[in-house]
Amino acid sequence: MANVVGVAMGSISDWPTMKLACEQLESLKIPYEKHIISAHRMPDELQEFGKTARDKGLKVIIAGAGGAAHLPGMIAANTTLPVIGVPMKTRTLNGVDSLLSIVQMPFGAPVATVSIGEAGAKNAALLAAQVLATTDPQVEQRLADLKEKQRVEAKNSEQQFD
Amino acid sequence: MANVVGVAMGSISDWPTMKLACEQLESLKIPYEKHIISAHRMPDELQEFGKTARDKGLKVIIAGAGGAAHLPGMIAANTTLPVIGVPMKTRTLNGVDSLLSIVQMPFGAPVATVSIGEAGAKNAALLAAQVLATTDPQVEQRLADLKEKQRVEAKNSEQQFD
Amino acid sequence: MANVVGVAMGSISDWPTMKLACEQLESLKIPYEKHIISAHRMPDELQEFGKTARDKGLKVIIAGAGGAAHLPGMIAANTTLPVIGVPMKTRTLNGVDSLLSIVQMPFGAPVATVSIGEAGAKNAALLAAQVLATTDPQVEQRLADLKEKQRVEAKNSEQQFD
Amino acid sequence: MANVVGVAMGSISDWPTMKLACEQLESLKIPYEKHIISAHRMPDELQEFGKTARDKGLKVIIAGAGGAAHLPGMIAANTTLPVIGVPMKTRTLNGVDSLLSIVQMPFGAPVATVSIGEAGAKNAALLAAQVLATTDPQVEQRLADLKEKQRVEAKNSEQQFD
Amino acid sequence: MANVVGVAMGSISDWPTMKLACEQLESLKIPYEKHIISAHRMPDELQEFGKTARDKGLKVIIAGAGGAAHLPGMIAANTTLPVIGVPMKTRTLNGVDSLLSIVQMPFGAPVATVSIGEAGAKNAALLAAQVLATTDPQVEQRLADLKEKQRVEAKNSEQQFD
Amino acid sequence: MANVVGVAMGSISDWPTMKLACEQLESLKIPYEKHIISAHRMPDELQEFGKTARDKGLKVIIAGAGGAAHLPGMIAANTTLPVIGVPMKTRTLNGVDSLLSIVQMPFGAPVATVSIGEAGAKNAALLAAQVLATTDPQVEQRLADLKEKQRVEAKNSEQQFD
Amino acid sequence: MANVVGVAMGSISDWPTMKLACEQLESLKIPYEKHIISAHRMPDELQEFGKTARDKGLKVIIAGAGGAAHLPGMIAANTTLPVIGVPMKTRTLNGVDSLLSIVQMPFGAPVATVSIGEAGAKNAALLAAQVLATTDPQVEQRLADLKEKQRVEAKNSEQQFD
Amino acid sequence: MANVVGVAMGSISDWPTMKLACEQLESLKIPYEKHIISAHRMPDELQEFGKTARDKGLKVIIAGAGGAAHLPGMIAANTTLPVIGVPMKTRTLNGVDSLLSIVQMPFGAPVATVSIGEAGAKNAALLAAQVLATTDPQVEQRLADLKEKQRVEAKNSEQQFD
Repeated sequence: MANVVGVAMGSISDWPTMKLACEQLESLKIPYEKHIISAHRMPDELQEFGKTARDKGLKVIIAGAGGAAHLPGMIAANTTLPVIGVPMKTRTLNGVDSLLSIVQMPFGAPVATVSIGEAGAKNAALLAAQVLATTDPQVEQRLADLKEKQRVEAKNSEQQFD
Repeated sequence: MANVVGVAMGSISDWPTMKLACEQLESLKIPYEKHIISAHRMPDELQEFGKTARDKGLKVIIAGAGGAAHLPGMIAANTTLPVIGVPMKTRTLNGVDSLLSIVQMPFGAPVATVSIGEAGAKNAALLAAQVLATTDPQVEQRLADLKEKQRVEAKNSEQQFD
Repeated sequence: MANVVGVAMGSISDWPTMKLACEQLESLKIPYEKHIISAHRMPDELQEFGKTARDKGLKVIIAGAGGAAHLPGMIAANTTLPVIGVPMKTRTLNGVDSLLSIVQMPFGAPVATVSIGEAGAKNAALLAAQVLATTDPQVEQRLADLKEKQRVEAKNSEQQFD
Repeated sequence: MANVVGVAMGSISDWPTMKLACEQLESLKIPYEKHIISAHRMPDELQEFGKTARDKGLKVIIAGAGGAAHLPGMIAANTTLPVIGVPMKTRTLNGVDSLLSIVQMPFGAPVATVSIGEAGAKNAALLAAQVLATTDPQVEQRLADLKEKQRVEAKNSEQQFD
Repeated sequence: MANVVGVAMGSISDWPTMKLACEQLESLKIPYEKHIISAHRMPDELQEFGKTARDKGLKVIIAGAGGAAHLPGMIAANTTLPVIGVPMKTRTLNGVDSLLSIVQMPFGAPVATVSIGEAGAKNAALLAAQVLATTDPQVEQRLADLKEKQRVEAKNSEQQFD
Repeated sequence: MANVVGVAMGSISDWPTMKLACEQLESLKIPYEKHIISAHRMPDELQEFGKTARDKGLKVIIAGAGGAAHLPGMIAANTTLPVIGVPMKTRTLNGVDSLLSIVQMPFGAPVATVSIGEAGAKNAALLAAQVLATTDPQVEQRLADLKEKQRVEAKNSEQQFD
Repeated sequence: MANVVGVAMGSISDWPTMKLACEQLESLKIPYEKHIISAHRMPDELQEFGKTARDKGLKVIIAGAGGAAHLPGMIAANTTLPVIGVPMKTRTLNGVDSLLSIVQMPFGAPVATVSIGEAGAKNAALLAAQVLATTDPQVEQRLADLKEKQRVEAKNSEQQFD
Repeated sequence: MANVVGVAMGSISDWPTMKLACEQLESLKIPYEKHIISAHRMPDELQEFGKTARDKGLKVIIAGAGGAAHLPGMIAANTTLPVIGVPMKTRTLNGVDSLLSIVQMPFGAPVATVSIGEAGAKNAALLAAQVLATTDPQVEQRLADLKEKQRVEAKNSEQQFD
C-alpha cells in the first residue's frame, strides 16, 4: 500500500520526538515515509519534497522543526496538501520560538499547528489520521476505538491514587 | 449539496473575524454551516454539536474562540473529525491566551491551530479546503488556482512601490 | 459526614500535585472525594460531574489541569458551584499555558484561579475551606489556627539562619 | 439587610472596571459595600479592613488592583474570608503584571483570581454570589436563572449574523 | 554603478517600514534594488533570488518580514552573502513573533537581526553600509560623518527641553 | 556601631540567595540586621518593621521575595526609607512574577529593584552601600576599591582562556 | 544651592516622561540638572558624565532610556553614585525590553530600577529624595508630608464613585 | 597575517559558548583575537577597544554578553565596523533578557544579532566570514564548501533513524 503520510523533520535531533508520531501512525496502520529535510541546509530538497508530495501519493504532511522552524511553513508554500506542524521544545526558549514561527503563517499557506513537543508529535499523527478518516471508514473506526480506549484508561487511572 | 464544513464560534463578537473564514469557503465553493456555540454558556449544545457532526455529513470543523478559548478543544474531545482552531485576538493579551489555550492540547484530542486573528480565520478556510482536496480534485484545482493567483498578486504588488 | 469538596484532575500525572490539596483538606477535616476527569478524554463524565455536583451535596469544586487545561472552565460551565482552578506546571511552558487557559474565562463561568503548581494546590484547599467557613465556624476556627501557626513558624524560621 | 460582599479597589482609576462588579452584584440582589483602599498609600486602612471584615458581617471580599497589585493578597493576609482578586488591565503590560502579582500567592493566603479587566470584574461578582449560594438557595436560583439567560442569549445571537 | 544591496520584503504592507531602509541607503549613496518576495507565495522566486544574488553583484541582502517571517532565513539558506533581517511589527504580537522567527536560526544559516520595526529598518541600512565599508573608505567616511552628525544632534536636542 | 541596613526576606527559603547580600554588606563593613518577615504570614510584623525602621536607625532596607512578592512594596508603603527589592528566582516562572510584582509599583511607594536572583542580591548590598556612600567617604572608598578590584579581575580572567 | 540630582535621558523623545521626574523633584525642592545623554550616540559624553558626577556634587543619578536602554547601566559602570533607572514604554514591546535591559545588571554595577513609564519616572524622583533623606531631615519631612497627602487623597477619592 | 575579527565577551563565564565561535573562525582560517571586555567592569577598555578596532585592522567584531548585555551595543556606539551580538543563555530568563538588550538598538548603532547561545555563537563566526567573503573569494569558497558539507551531512543523517 502506498505511503499516504510524509513525515519530515529539520534535524536528526528532532527524531526522538518525531518518532512518537511515527509510532502512532503505525499503530493506526497508516503507511508513511520519513525524511530529514533541513529548511536551512537542504532548501532545494525541501522545494522538491513540497512540489512532488501530492504526485507521489501523499495526502498529509507532518513536519517537525525547532527554533526559527521554517520547515512546515516552507513545505506549505510549495504544496496544497495539508501540512501539520510540530513545534520542537528548544533548549533556550522551550519551544515558544518554534511555536510562533510555525503557527503565525500569513494568509495563503496555513500550517495546522499542534502542541509543543511530545504530545504534539503524537497528536500530529492523530490529526493526519483524522484527515484520512474523512473518507476512510477503517481509519475512522481505529480513531474511534483509540478515543474509547483513552477514555477507559483515563477513567481507570483513578486506581493509581495512593 | 450537503454542508461539509461546520464553522463554530464562541461569541457573536468573534463574527467579524470568522466571517472572513466563511467568505473564503464561499469563494472556494465549499458548502458550510455556521453556529454560535459558546463552550461556557452552551456546553450541552457543544457536546451535541461535536457528537453529531460526522453523522450530519460534516467533514471538517472550524472553531474560533478567544481568551480561555475552550471551544475548539472541547469539540475535538467529542468527535474524530479534524478540528481547526482559530485563536481570536483579545483585548488584554492580544490573543496569546487564545493561542495557548487552543494549541496546547494533550495527546488524544488534537486541534489544528492557525495564526491569531484575521489571517488565521482565512487560513482556516484554506486548511479545511486542503483536507477536502485530499480526495476532491475540484477543490484541489481551486486551491492551486488561488495559490497561483496569490503568487502573481504578490509579484505585481511591486508596482505599488512609491 | 457527606463530602463537601470535589477534587478533580485531568490526568493521573496531576496527582502528585493535587495530592497536596487533598492532604490539606484532610488536615482541615473537610470531607472530600477525588476523581480523574479528563476534559478531552472523558467529556461526558465531565458534563455529568458538573451537572450533578450540587445535588450530590458538594459545595466547592477544586479542579487541577495542565496545558490547554479546559477542565476547570468546563466544570464551571456546567454548575453554579464555585470552581477553584489549579494550573499545573507544564514541561514546556512551565504552566503559563495552564494559567492563561484557566484564568482567562469569559463572563458567565468564573474560575477561582490559584497559583501554578504545588503552592496553588495547597491554597486551593484553603480557599475551599474559606468558602465553607463563611457559614461553618469550626472550619473558620481551624483556618484561623492555621494562620496563627504559619505566622509563628515563619517568625521562628529565623533560627535557621546560618 | 447587612452587606455581605466588600468590594475594594486600589485606586479611583479602577472604578470604571470595578463598577461592573458592583452592577452585577446589584442585579443579583447581593448587598455590598465599596471602598478605595490603596495598598501602598493606605496600608493601615488595608490592615484594618482585612482584620475587621468578618466581624462586620462580610462573607466575601472582591479586590481589584493593577500593576504591582498588592491589595488582594494583603487583604488575604489579614483575613480568613475568601478574597477574589481582579487584575486590572494596565497601560504598559496590559495586565500581565497585575495577573502575576495577584495569582502567584504562596501557601497560606490564597487569592481567587479571575480574568484580567472587565470580564474578570463581572465574573468576580458571580464568583462571590456562588460562594454565598453554597448556603443561600435564593442566590443559587438567581445564578441558575442568569446561566440559563446567558445560554439563550448566546444561542439567539446567531440572528446577528450578517 | 551596479547595485550592491538587495532589499527584499515579504509583502507590500512591509513597504512603509522598509522604505526607511531604502531612504537611508540612498542618503549613504549606496546603489540598491528592491523586491517583493513572499516566502510563502513566491517560494521559487525566493530560491532564485537567493541563488543568483552573488552573481548579480549584490554584496549584502536586507530582508524584512513579519509574523512567521521566513523570508530572511530562507534567503540565507540559499546564499553565502550576509543577510540582514528586519522583524516587522505585527498587529497581534507586536513583532515578537517576527523577531523570534528571524533571529533563532540554527547553525549554518545566520541572519543578522536588527530591532523590530522602523528603527530596525534604518539600522539595517547602516549595517549593510558597515559591511561595505570594511573595504570601501568612502562609505566608511559617510558612516563616520553620520555618526558625528547624530552625536551633535543628540547633544543639541537638549535645547528642546521645555 | 548601630545597624544601618535592614535585610528582610519573605521566607527562610530565600536565605541562600539573600545570604549573598549579607556577605557583601559584611565585606563592605556595613552593620546590618536580618529578619524573616513574610508579607502574607506576618502582616503585622511587616507593618511594625516598616513604621519603626527609621527610628531604629536604619538608613536603607533590602527586601527579597518571590512569586507574588509583596514584601518590598509593602515595606515601602510604611516608610520613607529607600527600599531595595530583590526578586527571587521562582520554580515555575523563573522570577518573572517576582520581578513584575516588585518593580511595577505605583507612584508614591518606589522600590529600587535589582536583577533576579543571586546577582541581584549581591547588587542590592552594593546599592545600599552606594546610598550610604553619598555621605560616608569611607564606604565610598570601599566601593571604589571594589570597582577597581573587579576591573582588574575581569581583565585578568583572560588568562583562563583555554 | 548646588544640584544634587542629575537627570539623564537617552533621547529628547523621553522628555515627556522624564519631565514628570523633574517636576516631582521640584515639588520636593531638590536642586537638579538635566541632560540628554545618548548611550549610543554620545558614548564619550556618557563616560565623562559618569566619571565626573560625584565631583560635581551630584549625589544621585536618575537615568531614563528605552529599548536596548544601555544608559542607566553604563552610567553605573562609571560611578559609585546610586543610579536609578527608568524604563521607557516602547512602541513595539511596551517597555519589556527597556525593563529587562535596565534591571538585569550583573554584580558590580547595580541599577535601582523603577516601574515602566510615567509612574516610574515620578517614583524615580521619590527614590532619589529618599536617598537624600537618609541624611537630610527636611527632605524626609517633605516625603512624609507627601505620603500623608497621598493617603488622604486616596481615601477621599471614594467621593468620586458615581 | 593580521587579525581581522575581534571576539569580545563580557565575562569568562561566556567562554564555553564563545569558544565555539572561535573554533568556527579557525576552521574557516580567519585570523582573530579574543578578549574579555566587561561593559560594566571595564568601561574604559570597552571604549578603547571600540575606538581603535578599525585602525588595528579588524574588519568585524563579535561580542557575546548575557543579561543586561550592554557590550555589543556599546562597542557599536564606538565604531563603524559591523558588530555581531551573541545573546548568552541566562540562568533566570534563558537569554530573553540578553536577546532584547542586544537586538533592540536605536537608529545609529546597529548590532547584527544572532540566535541565543551556542548556535548563535557558531553562526556569529559564519556571519563574520560572510562579511569578509564579500571581497575575499577564498573565504567565500570555504563558506560554500561548508554549506555543501552541511547539506550532505543533514541528508545523510537519515541513516541514523532507528
